Amino acid sequence: MPRDGGPARLRLQQAGLDLYQERGYDQVTAAEIAARAGVTERTFYRHFADKREVLFDGENVLRDALTAALADTPEALAPLPALLRSFRAVVPLLEDNRTFSEPRQRVIDATPALREREQAKTVALAETLAAALRDRGVPEPAASLAARTGITAFGHAVTAWLLDPALRLDPLLRQTFEDLRTLTAPLAATGEVSRGAGSRLPR
Amino acid sequence: MPRDGGPARLRLQQAGLDLYQERGYDQVTAAEIAARAGVTERTFYRHFADKREVLFDGENVLRDALTAALADTPEALAPLPALLRSFRAVVPLLEDNRTFSEPRQRVIDATPALREREQAKTVALAETLAAALRDRGVPEPAASLAARTGITAFGHAVTAWLLDPALRLDPLLRQTFEDLRTLTAPLAATGEVSRGAGSRLPR
Repeated sequence: MPRDGGPARLRLQQAGLDLYQERGYDQVTAAEIAARAGVTERTFYRHFADKREVLFDGENVLRDALTAALADTPEALAPLPALLRSFRAVVPLLEDNRTFSEPRQRVIDATPALREREQAKTVALAETLAAALRDRGVPEPAASLAARTGITAFGHAVTAWLLDPALRLDPLLRQTFEDLRTLTAPLAATGEVSRGAGSRLPR
Repeated sequence: MPRDGGPARLRLQQAGLDLYQERGYDQVTAAEIAARAGVTERTFYRHFADKREVLFDGENVLRDALTAALADTPEALAPLPALLRSFRAVVPLLEDNRTFSEPRQRVIDATPALREREQAKTVALAETLAAALRDRGVPEPAASLAARTGITAFGHAVTAWLLDPALRLDPLLRQTFEDLRTLTAPLAATGEVSRGAGSRLPR
């Protein structure tokens, strides 16, 4: 995730990440992060509500960049193609921040409390994108289902990209959405879905 | 979610849910749940690790029922149709438990710590289903992407069903998977996905 803010805020984030990697998240206090960053504990709490937030600051940057990108896509574009275009638009932001995101993801994966926080942020991001789709005129339940499905595919691509330095994010995103379409296509042929009545969704 | 276990365990779950509804989750202790259920606090902790788990016992029942249903679907069925069939197989289990699940969902929705727990359980369920798909011979990344997408659609349908007593779950599940296919179909036509190279996924 991208980072945000002035020098003290950025130093606190790097100091937190470094300490979490060195000792494990549970063994580190906000005071120690502040000391490593060369600021007071009071300054730490001016920037972050708690030591978890040091790793989640960039979620707001990502959310704002995604909603701005979505607002820039033509209204005629269907929901998932519009989301894919928005995810592709934030690739440079994610790439610029890879040296921070990669170790950050390892710390999160190793810490149950952080994994729960990350999942909650992902759900919140899906809700934000669903609201943005409704603002474009996409009705429910299409807006929520598209936003959740899109975020699922986006998360899948970003996770694979962070795990393998040889992968490039933009082609991986396009491939993941293509895979999504390939996976859902057989739903039409199995008789498992309702036939004849058509879909409630605009095509 | 379905419930599990003998009389004391079931009484503890109902007592917990009742107290959470009456006072709010944060205001209730394990000792109070035990007293309401007519058992000792020691008995409470023999059944549940903490007061959160009173609401999440049924997740294991659901997971086991889903993996058993998936094992029963023909191997030739593609991943998402196989998942849809498995979700449809557990509809009676979910319907039988609706009088518990509906107030349970309201308590969870009102309590951030419970929402995070629920999301973590959902992620774990997706991982279990991805492993079951791999056991059927579905390669990665198809197995994980299908499991996550399927759980997303399943959760979407179950949430809508719990919110509206007029809805029936089985047609809603089928409709949601049909909607998923309808939403992904335009990905082929927009030029947003990689063309020509085809998909990495088996069709």
